[in-house]
Amino acid sequence: MPELRKDPIIGRWVIISTERGKRPSDFPGAPKRKKENKLCPFCPGNESATPPEILAIRPDTSEPNKPGWTLRVISNKYPALRIEGDLNREGVGIFDKMNGVGAHEVIIETPDHNKDLIDLSTKEVQDVIWAYRERSLDLKKDPRFQYILIFKNQGEAAGASLEHSHSQLIALPIVPKRVTEELEGASKYYGYKERCVFCDIIRQEIADDERVVIQNDSFVSLEPFAPRFPFETWILPKRHSASFDEIKKEDISALATLLLETLRRLAKALNNPQYNYLLHTSPVNNDYPEEYHWHIEIIPKLTKVAGFEWGTGFYINPTTPEDAASYLKELEI
Amino acid sequence: MPELRKDPIIGRWVIISTERGKRPSDFPGAPKRKKENKLCPFCPGNESATPPEILAIRPDTSEPNKPGWTLRVISNKYPALRIEGDLNREGVGIFDKMNGVGAHEVIIETPDHNKDLIDLSTKEVQDVIWAYRERSLDLKKDPRFQYILIFKNQGEAAGASLEHSHSQLIALPIVPKRVTEELEGASKYYGYKERCVFCDIIRQEIADDERVVIQNDSFVSLEPFAPRFPFETWILPKRHSASFDEIKKEDISALATLLLETLRRLAKALNNPQYNYLLHTSPVNNDYPEEYHWHIEIIPKLTKVAGFEWGTGFYINPTTPEDAASYLKELEI
Repeated sequence: MPELRKDPIIGRWVIISTERGKRPSDFPGAPKRKKENKLCPFCPGNESATPPEILAIRPDTSEPNKPGWTLRVISNKYPALRIEGDLNREGVGIFDKMNGVGAHEVIIETPDHNKDLIDLSTKEVQDVIWAYRERSLDLKKDPRFQYILIFKNQGEAAGASLEHSHSQLIALPIVPKRVTEELEGASKYYGYKERCVFCDIIRQEIADDERVVIQNDSFVSLEPFAPRFPFETWILPKRHSASFDEIKKEDISALATLLLETLRRLAKALNNPQYNYLLHTSPVNNDYPEEYHWHIEIIPKLTKVAGFEWGTGFYINPTTPEDAASYLKELEI
Repeated sequence: MPELRKDPIIGRWVIISTERGKRPSDFPGAPKRKKENKLCPFCPGNESATPPEILAIRPDTSEPNKPGWTLRVISNKYPALRIEGDLNREGVGIFDKMNGVGAHEVIIETPDHNKDLIDLSTKEVQDVIWAYRERSLDLKKDPRFQYILIFKNQGEAAGASLEHSHSQLIALPIVPKRVTEELEGASKYYGYKERCVFCDIIRQEIADDERVVIQNDSFVSLEPFAPRFPFETWILPKRHSASFDEIKKEDISALATLLLETLRRLAKALNNPQYNYLLHTSPVNNDYPEEYHWHIEIIPKLTKVAGFEWGTGFYINPTTPEDAASYLKELEI
């Protein structure tokens, strides 16, 4: 019997359609197809093909915007938003608009064109997370920005236009709709229970141990109770924290370890799937310090879904999160 | 300068990133690739390969579940939901679930395997719309169902698993999230203005004439002010009506004409794109008769978007709706 399940945070129902049950091997994988690309603007030696670096990890002896770096943050050459100008919020009859002011940055995770994030060392992934935090803290100082959105598109079908491994950061003058929904849902739950809904989820999931993939002292990675997609996986800090940039130095290393192992398990289970991950954190104003709980959502791109899901907010998922968790957990990696 | 625009119904902001402006020819089309498929269960002669028909248009002289039909409605052989059983709503710790009870039907729009919806006559499309209405009215009688969702996936990338032209209907024991958001937004607007937000949009769009594609006495097809996707197109009845199944017989013909011409213009402009359309109507209880306004949303599948948009509710659209409307309007078809 298919089952309807409700997401406890934003109240979205999804269908877990077990009768269309899919094993990991039923999904087409995305075999690696990296090629030496002489024109890759993210490769060392081509620094002049990108806007100047905002942040880099490089030896003191090396010059900015020259080779020698191990991680590099630049402005997006084709930004979705522009850093200059005022918002000029205004009406157009019954409609509302404002200028597309914001920052759009690219975190080049490695100088090696042939490596994906999962091929990096824990130390290198730590540096990536450190860069996320540094850029967040810096951009938060700009009073025009309400939200700092960090995400990664891995693979062409997941929206990556360049194959050299990178993440993106967008600073926005508004809070994205999904985050607003999470804030409202979490705040409603808190109003009723006086407990963080994410903390309650983590406690129940660890006790049940049905949907947990892996955990360490500081983080847990799990399949959510009402996932939209097969093998949708969340990573959450075990200790309550609303804002990602509050992360402590020692926890950056714990997060790097857990993120890397979770991604490697997904890669092995699903034959290197294309994927997206998104970091959901508090808005800049941090108005919900007790209610909200930052986390990472990893979404492998496995099923063909399109306008239907966008148009309805309604998802049919052929794999139960319990099956996905037990499969991922038992993998030898 | 990119522009941020707010959807006046559900309050979602989108970026219209004109600097990445795309002409229709920049999008890869989906050239027709229909092939004779001997095993197509939707073709005449193969009726026994599908569940028995629920509704059909066929001459009085022809037998059910035999050839002779021009339109056929059947249960989905692999339904996402099951028609038998009770909901048994229950909790699992802090989570909520219920049985996946519902109906999942397929409307086979034509006996001709080689025709898409846009190749049909106005009369044939009228029959398709008539079938949507008949099945909606019938399924509404079942007290377990709260919502009747009608949609079409055209093309493999848009989620169609069989290429023979068809639409789908799902009767649900819940209201999908996007519809709930529209109901809440429309109801908030009505509370303030005592007018339907959709009626106000239609009035302003027809007066401005910047985003209207085509119209007739009863319907208008337009590019919304804050579209998520390039060439996203909505069709709305000009006279206020909350529920699609209230449609009058004479309006079915006007809708068929407008739907067909809109889809043909999109097909010509974008080289036969794959697409989805969704019919947003009132829930079965019709609790918002003055506030809500049914409509069709057509979403061509042109851009590679994935988990990022699902994870954030945040969209970057490279084509302004004004450009899309003027292009579609001026096409010779």
